[in-house]
Amino acid sequence: MYKVKVSIVGASGYTGGELLRLLLFHPFVEVKQVTSESYTGKFVHKVHPNLRKTTQMKFVSASELETCDLVFLCLPHNSSQNKIDHYKSLAPKIIDLSADFRLNDSSEYEKWYGHKHAHPELLKEFVYGIPELYREEMKTANYISSAGCNATASILGLYPLFKAGLVEEDRTVIEVKAGSSEGGNKVNDGSHHPERSGVVRSYMPTKHRHTAEMHQELSFGKNIHIHFSATAIDIVRGLLATCHVFLKNDLQEKEIWKVYRDAYGSEPFIRIVKENDGIYRYPEPKLLSGTNYCDIGFKKDEFSNRLVVVSAIDNLMKGAAGQALQAFNIMYGFDERAGLEFPGLHPI
Amino acid sequence: MYKVKVSIVGASGYTGGELLRLLLFHPFVEVKQVTSESYTGKFVHKVHPNLRKTTQMKFVSASELETCDLVFLCLPHNSSQNKIDHYKSLAPKIIDLSADFRLNDSSEYEKWYGHKHAHPELLKEFVYGIPELYREEMKTANYISSAGCNATASILGLYPLFKAGLVEEDRTVIEVKAGSSEGGNKVNDGSHHPERSGVVRSYMPTKHRHTAEMHQELSFGKNIHIHFSATAIDIVRGLLATCHVFLKNDLQEKEIWKVYRDAYGSEPFIRIVKENDGIYRYPEPKLLSGTNYCDIGFKKDEFSNRLVVVSAIDNLMKGAAGQALQAFNIMYGFDERAGLEFPGLHPI
Amino acid sequence: MYKVKVSIVGASGYTGGELLRLLLFHPFVEVKQVTSESYTGKFVHKVHPNLRKTTQMKFVSASELETCDLVFLCLPHNSSQNKIDHYKSLAPKIIDLSADFRLNDSSEYEKWYGHKHAHPELLKEFVYGIPELYREEMKTANYISSAGCNATASILGLYPLFKAGLVEEDRTVIEVKAGSSEGGNKVNDGSHHPERSGVVRSYMPTKHRHTAEMHQELSFGKNIHIHFSATAIDIVRGLLATCHVFLKNDLQEKEIWKVYRDAYGSEPFIRIVKENDGIYRYPEPKLLSGTNYCDIGFKKDEFSNRLVVVSAIDNLMKGAAGQALQAFNIMYGFDERAGLEFPGLHPI
Amino acid sequence: MYKVKVSIVGASGYTGGELLRLLLFHPFVEVKQVTSESYTGKFVHKVHPNLRKTTQMKFVSASELETCDLVFLCLPHNSSQNKIDHYKSLAPKIIDLSADFRLNDSSEYEKWYGHKHAHPELLKEFVYGIPELYREEMKTANYISSAGCNATASILGLYPLFKAGLVEEDRTVIEVKAGSSEGGNKVNDGSHHPERSGVVRSYMPTKHRHTAEMHQELSFGKNIHIHFSATAIDIVRGLLATCHVFLKNDLQEKEIWKVYRDAYGSEPFIRIVKENDGIYRYPEPKLLSGTNYCDIGFKKDEFSNRLVVVSAIDNLMKGAAGQALQAFNIMYGFDERAGLEFPGLHPI
Repeated sequence: MYKVKVSIVGASGYTGGELLRLLLFHPFVEVKQVTSESYTGKFVHKVHPNLRKTTQMKFVSASELETCDLVFLCLPHNSSQNKIDHYKSLAPKIIDLSADFRLNDSSEYEKWYGHKHAHPELLKEFVYGIPELYREEMKTANYISSAGCNATASILGLYPLFKAGLVEEDRTVIEVKAGSSEGGNKVNDGSHHPERSGVVRSYMPTKHRHTAEMHQELSFGKNIHIHFSATAIDIVRGLLATCHVFLKNDLQEKEIWKVYRDAYGSEPFIRIVKENDGIYRYPEPKLLSGTNYCDIGFKKDEFSNRLVVVSAIDNLMKGAAGQALQAFNIMYGFDERAGLEFPGLHPI
Repeated sequence: MYKVKVSIVGASGYTGGELLRLLLFHPFVEVKQVTSESYTGKFVHKVHPNLRKTTQMKFVSASELETCDLVFLCLPHNSSQNKIDHYKSLAPKIIDLSADFRLNDSSEYEKWYGHKHAHPELLKEFVYGIPELYREEMKTANYISSAGCNATASILGLYPLFKAGLVEEDRTVIEVKAGSSEGGNKVNDGSHHPERSGVVRSYMPTKHRHTAEMHQELSFGKNIHIHFSATAIDIVRGLLATCHVFLKNDLQEKEIWKVYRDAYGSEPFIRIVKENDGIYRYPEPKLLSGTNYCDIGFKKDEFSNRLVVVSAIDNLMKGAAGQALQAFNIMYGFDERAGLEFPGLHPI
Repeated sequence: MYKVKVSIVGASGYTGGELLRLLLFHPFVEVKQVTSESYTGKFVHKVHPNLRKTTQMKFVSASELETCDLVFLCLPHNSSQNKIDHYKSLAPKIIDLSADFRLNDSSEYEKWYGHKHAHPELLKEFVYGIPELYREEMKTANYISSAGCNATASILGLYPLFKAGLVEEDRTVIEVKAGSSEGGNKVNDGSHHPERSGVVRSYMPTKHRHTAEMHQELSFGKNIHIHFSATAIDIVRGLLATCHVFLKNDLQEKEIWKVYRDAYGSEPFIRIVKENDGIYRYPEPKLLSGTNYCDIGFKKDEFSNRLVVVSAIDNLMKGAAGQALQAFNIMYGFDERAGLEFPGLHPI
Repeated sequence: MYKVKVSIVGASGYTGGELLRLLLFHPFVEVKQVTSESYTGKFVHKVHPNLRKTTQMKFVSASELETCDLVFLCLPHNSSQNKIDHYKSLAPKIIDLSADFRLNDSSEYEKWYGHKHAHPELLKEFVYGIPELYREEMKTANYISSAGCNATASILGLYPLFKAGLVEEDRTVIEVKAGSSEGGNKVNDGSHHPERSGVVRSYMPTKHRHTAEMHQELSFGKNIHIHFSATAIDIVRGLLATCHVFLKNDLQEKEIWKVYRDAYGSEPFIRIVKENDGIYRYPEPKLLSGTNYCDIGFKKDEFSNRLVVVSAIDNLMKGAAGQALQAFNIMYGFDERAGLEFPGLHPI
């Protein structure tokens, strides 16, 4: 059977490494090249030691890239957009895992990212990369921009409620608890283990860039403002978004169940997690390490119209590499779960 | 110099042990008896191994309690209230660390704790135990009810704003990230290390009992509703309350600084933590382990009227034993910091 | 294609759950029944929440067990041996993951386990379950006794050296650093998160039962004594065995490389990990979570005849369920890696 | 009362910061200056955030140092020795926390540190800084070289046995489990949180420099070789040394108890920790965070002549700043415990 030939640009980072791991076990993919400027000529397992014995690939420089069927771009933000023409010349299809093509409106880049976009005319060519929202568009897309991790968890948690117009949008408060891998593989003073260990660090109380994606995907034509904060905690992978929304009308939990079931009942990677007893009553990110699941749960406040929605993902999987591969599978008509079957570990 | 003779009822628990540790080093206190029914006759360092070589005290049964100057009650909730007459007969002063006498309105016990209060007529005799709010009352008080840990952090974080009427009270959303010691020293399925380790567990998305204390102390005569949730994370000590409040009028950060400085400028145990650079820009609970500080910081959202207030404490210290000792010092006219000088460790 | 029908007895524990996870994705296996007395009638994902959406199986009581092709026994130690006749009547093949049939010499059970073995005559029917040592025997075996986790790491680390007679056996000192999942899923005072978190706990400085397996497999006809200790640290999965051995003759690292390469060069689940630079120069258990690898590295002391061998595994995988499945694959002539392809995560 | 005027050179590091914290609360000390080249002119709490509200001191450059009574040197290894004449001109007494003056024999620096010592003639002027070994010498010393952290725990654990000639010295194997603060406050690839978190990293299987100190203090005129390894684990503070020694004669645990009691019975900072039940049966470093204790326990192997001695300290306290202050107290005739009373926290 023909295997899709893909290359990964920026494969020495965490999302690039995770994507490589997934692709090496994908039944219909051949990984052609993986690039890294810092590690050119080195074995990939030098950087990604989990891949020892799995592959003998070496990194090449981006300048050595050859044409292929699809290029995954795993570069830092504000890198892809400057060379996008070059990547387009290398492959007819691109999945970009950076933020560079996530926002449809170029003025939002100025507001949230602080600089003008290099190619605003291309923004409309990219499909926003959450399959549960844009599955149909992905089937015929050539360019996909994979969604931000905090945005993915928040949007998936709230999408059915916002779409149905059930909540007072502007009262929404979301707080994400995030792990250290979200910051990437570059060391800094704040990532030094004695300083980073045990933290409950309010690292982005306001102005988190992923808020722009939430506004874009949850506005449904309105002008909304979501109140987002992020707190860093002592985990490596995973995030939990706790979303406080306020219902316009008094709904019972049974009715909310129905809203979520209707929206996600047939989704392969969404599980509604809400139990009355046991240890794991709500979504728990540690169970999702290495998986592509987004687990969503909720609890209605008995004393008010607040609904607390909790949404968990592995930031490197459903929040990055896994979701990109899910989109890839849809683009090529493969089983959406191909290469993404790992169910997660317990205990962990 | 005369030393105040105190006893601790329920001294084998975490708050009782922490209180004992503090009192053993207090210059004006003599610890007379410490009780435990499970460990009667055993050395206290059998249960609190940090006290090896510090004391050779043994636990006695509560039935052996003798009269003393002051009794600290460190019992599980719903225990003190049933025997309060007995404890009153043993000592003229009582500091209760449980929830039993925190709420002024007995109907609130029915709403949040699910049972009638055994002695509603006594509720008014107890001063609510946050010194920053009730210092004057404490000076002449005989009975103090120490505040809940989540309540302490939340109330101290928001008190100046609510008192000044600066925020839309009912839009307030608070999310606490809490450690495992908050659950006490009794093992359960959820506290088993393989299950509890690495969690980001939405253990109380709604209906947390400490909410009642927040309503009581932040209402200022109004009928308010605060939207509170608590998430358990993989730390033992410490909590961070992230409080999202919405300003009625557009205030600059400079003006908010002034509000906090006016309220807390001379407080020995409150620090305003807000820096523009460095690793520790906002309050960080790990730095507070073993200290009685409440660190408070804030950030105004540039794009809305939201103000994010973050407030950190050690739940066993400022959230329990430390705050109780601070109140004790006030009752007796001692330096408020006596026995509470430990500044915390770094790194940790 | 015919699928082997297997059942798991004691499937609510950690090793049983991990085995179930693996078997559900095995291409040539059908899981027929899984038993639990505590959870009879409950969904398996109630206990193993990672299996939500993967299976709708429910636990049955062991009394409901039907005949099948092979039974995996995941019971506590000293359980299998008392009912082994019953299990033999249910299936022609058995893989026992407990310690009950690991030792060939019944007197060793009295020495290390403190009780007489119920069926000493059956000990010789069981093949000791480390495939790298007994692959040929496994091909025709009906009964396999899967090895202990600490024993597996230690034996695999030292086997080539002991077999070649290169070390002074009785000077060997092994120290294992172990995670909390090794203690199973039953909660106890020592596993309570506030007490277990952050520990470096010398929980078994002497007399660890797995020592008996090391003696059995590393003696090669001699009477040897290995000095083993185990320390519990704050991880959930994984263990590292640091083995200090003393070389009879002065060997260069190059020669030691050759010994290991000759022994393990074609082994699918052993990797020699020894690098001169980078972060991951020696085996690291966290990289092995969910994998069946045993990573082995070594360092010769320049100033003495000591050789330090470090050996890492996931205690629930290569130390339990994974190794049992590897043996299963050999028994049935399947690819040894079937169902065990997961390469592990990075970062984690 | 006269206060001893001290300055700290290199006060922005972890040991310097910890020493500053201790000295600020010492009843007979005035901290005159604290130096840092990177942070000259900055508040010390910018680097040591635990000292917010405790001090308003600022760092000065070492070039601004004035004369004082005693200088603490907290510089990286190989720094003090090159400027020692300068420091001697500033103060009549020096306590050096680096390794520069720990070894009596300059050839050992070449062997273990790989370079010639700049001032071999001064080595004999420094007293080796473990008070339990050199208390008398410290009383009249002007120069003290504080001991290495791994060396302190190992030496204190084994000193009574080696001194009494009870063990076969050359069979001794020591394995230390260490936290990340041991590596100092400089970030590197290996200290990046996603990589350092959860590790069981064999970072120094052989050739650890602290071995030289163990040889020096445990040889008693013999030529001995101790087999030392160090493993990094996921804690910030604290270390546990597991020491495997082999007894020449068959001793009962009761006799070993007596050896330790005779040696350490009146030591203020050594506790023998060995219990038959409970959770904390042996020394546990987490209980020692912030304290100057060295906890020592042991277990005799029933099946051999091995004795396992476990020894725990806080590497920044008894392994660095605390021990230096203990020595300081002895030098000046203060109560040895002055400034070192903190008993540690539980739970933590």
